[in-house]
Formats: sequence, structure tokens, C-alpha cells
Amino acid sequence: MKFEVTILGSSSATPVYNRNPSAQLLNCNEKFYLIDCGEGTQQQLIKYGFKASKIDFVFISHLHGDHYFGLIGLLSTMHLNGRIKPIKIFAPAALMEILDLQFKHSETILRYPLEFVAITADTAQLIFENSDLTVSTIVLNHRIPCTGFVFTEKKRLRKVIVEKLEEENIPLEYYPLLKRGVDLTLPDGTILLNKDYTTDSDEPRKYAYCSDTLCDGSYFEQIKDCNTLYHEATFLHEMLERANQTHHTTALQAAETAITTGAKKLLIGHFSSRYKTLQPLLEEAVSAFENTQLAQEGSTFQI
Amino acid sequence: MKFEVTILGSSSATPVYNRNPSAQLLNCNEKFYLIDCGEGTQQQLIKYGFKASKIDFVFISHLHGDHYFGLIGLLSTMHLNGRIKPIKIFAPAALMEILDLQFKHSETILRYPLEFVAITADTAQLIFENSDLTVSTIVLNHRIPCTGFVFTEKKRLRKVIVEKLEEENIPLEYYPLLKRGVDLTLPDGTILLNKDYTTDSDEPRKYAYCSDTLCDGSYFEQIKDCNTLYHEATFLHEMLERANQTHHTTALQAAETAITTGAKKLLIGHFSSRYKTLQPLLEEAVSAFENTQLAQEGSTFQI
Repeated sequence: MKFEVTILGSSSATPVYNRNPSAQLLNCNEKFYLIDCGEGTQQQLIKYGFKASKIDFVFISHLHGDHYFGLIGLLSTMHLNGRIKPIKIFAPAALMEILDLQFKHSETILRYPLEFVAITADTAQLIFENSDLTVSTIVLNHRIPCTGFVFTEKKRLRKVIVEKLEEENIPLEYYPLLKRGVDLTLPDGTILLNKDYTTDSDEPRKYAYCSDTLCDGSYFEQIKDCNTLYHEATFLHEMLERANQTHHTTALQAAETAITTGAKKLLIGHFSSRYKTLQPLLEEAVSAFENTQLAQEGSTFQI
Repeated sequence: MKFEVTILGSSSATPVYNRNPSAQLLNCNEKFYLIDCGEGTQQQLIKYGFKASKIDFVFISHLHGDHYFGLIGLLSTMHLNGRIKPIKIFAPAALMEILDLQFKHSETILRYPLEFVAITADTAQLIFENSDLTVSTIVLNHRIPCTGFVFTEKKRLRKVIVEKLEEENIPLEYYPLLKRGVDLTLPDGTILLNKDYTTDSDEPRKYAYCSDTLCDGSYFEQIKDCNTLYHEATFLHEMLERANQTHHTTALQAAETAITTGAKKLLIGHFSSRYKTLQPLLEEAVSAFENTQLAQEGSTFQI
């Protein structure tokens, strides 16, 4: 099953040096989940060849503008482009108030249902579930209420032993049921015991998105054992005091978080505009946790 | 005196084909006036090498999102970048409500004074004046209240006859006063009669911005004799019915408006996303009014 994330924005606070404010597009089994939506996200979707119409779920971490100013434009474009299928938005309650006020004054009555789910930053909770994955919140520690999100695959399908099935001329049509653990009786009475033709599925994969936070460990339990951890790394560690003041994280702290929580891969982003080049941030993180990459615009990462 | 406009966005409704929603930057005597502010305007300013910090005046024509969704981001960036000098915004009253709600939920208290002037679309009026120019509204006919803007230079300076002044060794320091029409007595008692050393100033220049409107002639009186007329031309004339329904203008109508109102130059913009290339729109307008140009991103026009 496809489970990958494309970075649409890596900048903190303001767009700068061709970096856009926060936004990521998660593709899980060809369903599209937008995570944060800074100004210009719809332009970024066009730039990297994604159709906004494919997005059915939006998750907004908090109401600092660099994480949501692009949402009203994206929703308006969907409306103008004739969307009729619903969209579901998970965000702090006040965002609906902000959207409603803007729709009111443009006299826009959306052609599609907008289902708004208000999330709070009090406790971590399961907020979404479908056949592919679950989404839970992470309670972060920022200047205003802020949640991250953990995307966890549902239990994955068993793996069929293709060579054996081909050798016994078992038609492809049987594979999906075998993957689901079913024993099969063929038309000629032959019984295929699932255990003989499949092996255990891989562990479900897990992606955590930690947008803006003081790196105080309070949320580590919620992001344990990620296959891929995205963690903000606004500053170099020499700016630790500034990071603490503004409730942000340094690249070194992000790397240490990956180690402590047992992440397999770390993506860092939300870079301060003071950094024209990002290499120093990457080097700092890699010095502590080697499997770190820059969450830069246009990059896609397998989770 | 510099009097020029740079196009930051030429798209109607949605960003598409590298075209951004409406925004223009007027430079009058090195003071900067932003006209409309679609999503991504701050990114466009960066792209074309302008400093947002130089903008002191913003004019918003109406509250369809493609004309103002970028303003909250621009104002936030000015705040984050340490702006302290005031900014003055002329816009429909509800925009202040929308901005306030967003500042409230991000707990932003602007470091600089934001002076908001509510404009209405009832009657054309003078809304701004300084030593360089005046700004008046144009009452347009759109689906929601909408005003255009006329920027008119103040009476221009007299032109000094440089050859004569140089021949008589009159120091450069005297030129500014001569340009202002003053007669001068030199230290040696020589009298310079202004009329002998200057000629009449050129006529003050005039730029009109007609954002979104049904082309019904109701506003023609307000845009008479422009040096440069910007007029929306959302559609080709074959789409006249659609233009009328949506209260927009065709390229041919924009050209006819330029003729009727005595414009010297016409800029057309606000192009529908149905037009991948803009040549047909330009050709249609040029067929009726030759001195027409496409108001495309990054182009600067002398008024």
C-alpha cells in the first residue's frame, strides 16, 4: 500500500528563499490527506502536479497563519472548480468561524459539504479512522493550542508466496483473499490453507507530524516507534534560548527526539527565515541521528 | 516623477498556469501602493524583488478572495519582520472584521499601527491625498460591492530649460524652486523670472484600476482620459453571456471602454482559468484598441 508524504512547504512564519509556509500532502493508498496549509499551498499543489480535488481530509495543527492562511483559498478554488464531494477538516474550532466569516462576505455558498471536526489540544485522542489508517492527535507545547498528528496504518495484508502460487497455477484472482488470511476451497475440491501460501504481514507503518513545539518531552509517548517522524527544527542549537522563548525546537533536539522515541527516519522542517541555506541544520541533526533528511518543497518520502 | 505599475497577479478566481490572483504594485515617486492582494502576493513581491516593508498603502477593491486572501499573510509577515511604521488600508469594512478575527486567534498584537479606512461602493469619492497624488474610488457593478480606484498625480512640476540655465551658470540648487514656479533673486541682485527659465508642466497623469465589473458604462465618467487604464477582461467576447451573468467584462468590451473613455493605453487582466494562453484575449482587444497590453506577472508599465 502506498504510504508517502510530499512536502509542500518547509518555511516557518514567513515565505522566504523559495520556501513556502508549512504544508504536507500524505498519500495513503491513493487517498490524500493535507497536513497544514500555509499561504500558497494551492499554488504548490499545482507546481508539483497534484490535483486539489483529490484531497478529502485536511488536518490543521494550530492557528498561527503560516499553518492555515492557504486553506480559505484552497477551499474556494475547490468550490469554483465544481467540487461536489465532501471534505473533512480537523482543526481548532475557531478556524470554522474564520472560514465562515470569509464565505459570508464573499457571498459564497459552497457547492460541496464541508464537514468540520473541532479538535482540542487538551488530550491526545483518536480523531479519524478508515479502512487504511487511524489518525490521532499529539498534544504539543506551543504558544497557542497546537496539536501534531500521528498517522498509523491499519494492520497490513499478509504477504502471498508468489513463487508457490505460480508453481501451482493458482489464478491471480485468489490472491486478494489469501492476503486477507482466508483459507480457500478451489472448484476441484483442493483446499488451500492460508498458512501454506502466505507469510505474516509487515508491521503497520506510522508517521508523526510534530509542527510547532517546545521540545519538552511531554509528547514523546505519543510518537513512539515511528517509521518516519517529521519534527520541526526551526533553529540551530546555538539558538536554544530563542527556541525555548518562542516554543520551538532546534535541529539537535529534533534528532535527539528521534533517538529517544525510536524513530527509524527523521524529517526536519519549519526552518527559520534566518537560514538562507539549510545544510547546517541538516548537519547538526545528522551528527546525532544519521537517518535525517530535510523536509524540502517537492520532496516525497516513503514512510 | 516615477509613476509606474507592476503586475503581481493576473488570474481571476483561482491561481493557474503560473498566473496568480489579482495584485498590483503602484510606484508613485518611490512611494508604494498595493492594489488588491490575492493569495501569494507576498511571494510575488519576493519573486520580483520588491520589499513588502516599502508598502505604506493598500487598496482592496472587494471581498472576493482572489482580491484579498493574501493580505493577512502580508500583514503578518510585516509584523514578524519588525515593521513599526504605520500602514493604511482602504477596503470594505468587513475586511477589518476578518483580519481582527485572525489576529485574535493567533494572539497577534501588531507591532505597527494599522489604520483602516472603510470604503463603500455607493458613490465615487476622494479617499486619499498626499503631495504626490489623489486616489478616488470608482463604483463598479459586480456581484458584491466593488470599487475600482483612480490614481491621479498632483499638478506636476514646471520643466526647467536646462540649456539656458547652464549657459547662464545658474547652480543646480535653484532648479527645484524654479520647477515650483518661484521667481528668484540671486545674491548679486539678478532677478530670474520663472517664465523665462521654465515651461509649462505636463498634464498630471492618471491610472485607473477597474477590477471586477459588468461593463455597463455606469462608471465611464469616473475613468475619463486615463493615461493608462487597467480593465479586467476575464473572457473572450464569445463568452459575453457568461460575462454578463457573472458581472465580468470581455476583452473586446475592455477595448471599447478604453476608446469611449479616451484612454491612451489599456492594460487587460483578471483572465479566466479557461485560457491557457492569453494571445487570443490580447488580439481581440488590440483589434479594437491598438495600444493594449497584457497585465502579466512581473511586467512593469509606465503610466
